[in-house]
Amino acid sequence: GDRIFEHTMEKINAELFVMTYGSLVTHLLSDAGENVEDVNSQLDHIGYKIGVRLIDEYLAKSSTPCRSFRDTAEAIAKIGFKMFLGVYANVCNFSEDGNSYSLVLDENPLTPFVELPTKYKKDLWYSNVLCGVLKGALEMVSFKIDCYFVKDVLRGDDCTEIRVVLKE
Amino acid sequence: GDRIFEHTMEKINAELFVMTYGSLVTHLLSDAGENVEDVNSQLDHIGYKIGVRLIDEYLAKSSTPCRSFRDTAEAIAKIGFKMFLGVYANVCNFSEDGNSYSLVLDENPLTPFVELPTKYKKDLWYSNVLCGVLKGALEMVSFKIDCYFVKDVLRGDDCTEIRVVLKE
Repeated sequence: GDRIFEHTMEKINAELFVMTYGSLVTHLLSDAGENVEDVNSQLDHIGYKIGVRLIDEYLAKSSTPCRSFRDTAEAIAKIGFKMFLGVYANVCNFSEDGNSYSLVLDENPLTPFVELPTKYKKDLWYSNVLCGVLKGALEMVSFKIDCYFVKDVLRGDDCTEIRVVLKE
Repeated sequence: GDRIFEHTMEKINAELFVMTYGSLVTHLLSDAGENVEDVNSQLDHIGYKIGVRLIDEYLAKSSTPCRSFRDTAEAIAKIGFKMFLGVYANVCNFSEDGNSYSLVLDENPLTPFVELPTKYKKDLWYSNVLCGVLKGALEMVSFKIDCYFVKDVLRGDDCTEIRVVLKE
């Protein structure tokens, strides 16, 4: 117990992480040929498996309960992002029925120094692993969601925005 | 200048890094078929590109000069490993001519929770990216080296040992 908790507090240099993630995306792209949509799916799938495991660390360290779907927004933006990526996200655009919201990143820790080649700017969601992480993590606390990027500054958008939608 | 330095001080959750690196290795293995040696080479190559960039961060933050090859041992073990991976390494087995040494890791931050499938235990050097990082980084400060794992606890060895050999 204690030993594991101690371990999970450890931190790694951000640049090493950024380059390792970049290598992963590069290799997926080199395999995919023109099928960039397939790379988005693979990143989502990789993220899902990570999220399923990271939720344990989140629950061990955070005392904030997520009783409603609405609670998950602040929990992800203010605790989860900070705990794992070192930055906060902003919550906005809650739908009227409360079943969807957006997470907006002022700074995306996966992308410093990253520039997308023009041929990928239209189709690649470079940070799509994050959507998978959120899906995997929320599923473990009984929220089935859809999650996808709607904007990315890497593509030339004015901000980076992830949409989170509760299913059923 | 300041902005970049500030950024490079940032840290990422270690478990997220471990799983991202694991996804990279898994993906390379799935591509390589039976050719595990090729995966070792690819990890080394990925590490080289990372090392070539990380050395800038090291030089910006460390005031320890590496005038001789001998100096690089302590610089890597006591500063580099700590700065990027959060652990120290031990230097041992300096050759009589001073042209090679070993770095021994008590704890390998790339491998918590990792278990190698039996079929990979003989040939895969799971953490081979580290050898590439050392080659790339040292080359930037004018030391051409060979670098390779000689032991890995993941394979059942009693410790994890990286050999560093100066090439003239």
